[in-house]
Amino acid sequence: MINHQVRLANRPEGLPGDETWSLTEETIGDLDAGQFLVEIHFISLDPAMRLWMTDAPSYIPPVAVGEVMRALGVGRVVASKSDAFAEGAWVSGLLGVQEYLVTDGKGLTKIDPAIAPPQTFLNALGINGLTAYFGLLDVGKPASGETVLVSAAAGGVGAIAGQIAKIKGCRVIGIAGGAPKCAYVKNDLGFDGAIDYKRENMDEALREHCPNGVDVYFDNVGGEILEAALTHLAMNGRVVLCGAISQYNETEIRGPRNYLRLLVQRGRMEGFIFTDYVKQFKTAVPEMGGWFAEGKIKAQEDIVEGGVDIFPQTFLKLFSGENFGKLMIKVR
Amino acid sequence: MINHQVRLANRPEGLPGDETWSLTEETIGDLDAGQFLVEIHFISLDPAMRLWMTDAPSYIPPVAVGEVMRALGVGRVVASKSDAFAEGAWVSGLLGVQEYLVTDGKGLTKIDPAIAPPQTFLNALGINGLTAYFGLLDVGKPASGETVLVSAAAGGVGAIAGQIAKIKGCRVIGIAGGAPKCAYVKNDLGFDGAIDYKRENMDEALREHCPNGVDVYFDNVGGEILEAALTHLAMNGRVVLCGAISQYNETEIRGPRNYLRLLVQRGRMEGFIFTDYVKQFKTAVPEMGGWFAEGKIKAQEDIVEGGVDIFPQTFLKLFSGENFGKLMIKVR
Repeated sequence: MINHQVRLANRPEGLPGDETWSLTEETIGDLDAGQFLVEIHFISLDPAMRLWMTDAPSYIPPVAVGEVMRALGVGRVVASKSDAFAEGAWVSGLLGVQEYLVTDGKGLTKIDPAIAPPQTFLNALGINGLTAYFGLLDVGKPASGETVLVSAAAGGVGAIAGQIAKIKGCRVIGIAGGAPKCAYVKNDLGFDGAIDYKRENMDEALREHCPNGVDVYFDNVGGEILEAALTHLAMNGRVVLCGAISQYNETEIRGPRNYLRLLVQRGRMEGFIFTDYVKQFKTAVPEMGGWFAEGKIKAQEDIVEGGVDIFPQTFLKLFSGENFGKLMIKVR
Repeated sequence: MINHQVRLANRPEGLPGDETWSLTEETIGDLDAGQFLVEIHFISLDPAMRLWMTDAPSYIPPVAVGEVMRALGVGRVVASKSDAFAEGAWVSGLLGVQEYLVTDGKGLTKIDPAIAPPQTFLNALGINGLTAYFGLLDVGKPASGETVLVSAAAGGVGAIAGQIAKIKGCRVIGIAGGAPKCAYVKNDLGFDGAIDYKRENMDEALREHCPNGVDVYFDNVGGEILEAALTHLAMNGRVVLCGAISQYNETEIRGPRNYLRLLVQRGRMEGFIFTDYVKQFKTAVPEMGGWFAEGKIKAQEDIVEGGVDIFPQTFLKLFSGENFGKLMIKVR
């Protein structure tokens, strides 16, 4: 049986191009005792993967040149010599951009497709949902009645962060690019307002939508939008640093030039990584699952079907503003 | 009796020059009931005054063009029709860059020159000491054994922040410009190390002095030194935004280009203004006074003697790196 894979061939500068990747194939060998074979169904495409390609100190080591590209995924166990993972079980974890994985199960989590479709465990009940949950609640700490601003509000994490803020009784304004995404954020997700950063003047729009300032800004994008949010930060406001997708492909990062707004407003800007909260997953996942089941949290999926060879161009959708919801490749 | 004053004539761009100021004189009139006359002895010169000259949203309204320049000072009551402030009392507060102030006492604090010389109430027992105290302890929250890095470590606030960190059992590294200041920081203030930013490569020096990273960075300067500190931020590190003297005269502020280190390191950057803690002054001032009396806190003074007319050029010492310790003008 052949396993098709996408490997990191060269570290990209700027947007990853064809030269960044190599497509390889390997024959899958026999399983050792304790091992099992995962047939990968969905591959998660996340902005953080751009950081994993860069050889700079980060929260995890970079993907080595020549390695299969690191990616979260969900899959099904199709052969097993493991007592812990039986044939037919579903798992999620770092499965890589490939069709199959032989593993001893380290770092993988069993998922229950009776609760939600498998791909939901990459979205609302996985990396995106948990990132939104802990970033908003533990770092942002919004109080009922406060104004929460979310960028990339139609994206995988932003959409959920805003919906959790609504559950917590906040006024929630989303920032997204284009009328369809803004309509989705307001009408489908129930945000109190949406700002189209491609069309509107951010400063005027924030003055209108957040007249008392921004108490919590959940930042997925960085750059000029971060600066606009800082300009409108309320007293004791909090900036949750979740990501900075506008900057990941820049060779010169734009630091927020008005960061001294934090001083003037007695504000706080704080980063986090959702995996730090692994001990709290056992309470967070059921709570998120409950909201999901009740329809309080909707999670839009942007699923592209095809083989692993479509990964290089599909990944670029994250940075063009083209994707709508959580981007995944359905390889099977 | 004539009162000589320095007024803001024009808002500066960049460093305040001669055209920024006008020297005026006024005859002091009779006191109304409830008023008293303060003879100003020391005028405090603080980097924040540069922000007060700028017509941008800040934590207090800017000084109006034509107004006497706002400044903290200490002085003595020389005539009084107030029941609360008798002749001979010493006061501190926003007295302005002038020789005398007629006031009803609103916002002024009585000081006791038996505890320390009057000018100490502009330094260790006033704005500088309280800024260091609340910024370090309430925002930075250093634990014993942690590494605390302080910029402008020979300056009015930095010197005290570092000494408080030593009292709390931290390893303290100071950043200062030039060998004499570095020697002072190490030998006189008892810091564990000093980095001369004018001579040393910041990155190498931080690697050497803070091998386990920086747990708390108390920032008075901003710019490249803030970036260097962020590069070496320890996991869960905190950046206390106290000031950014390197940026106050810049028309284009340099935002920290590596602010995403906060994300990777789960760090926090937070601003504060010491006047927010006014209710806690009554516990902080005696505690600081105790440390001062025991010699655990030393406060270097850079006192320039002369009339208020020396204010314009003396103020520039703050930005040239020329002053050594808390800068004041002794007008009497």
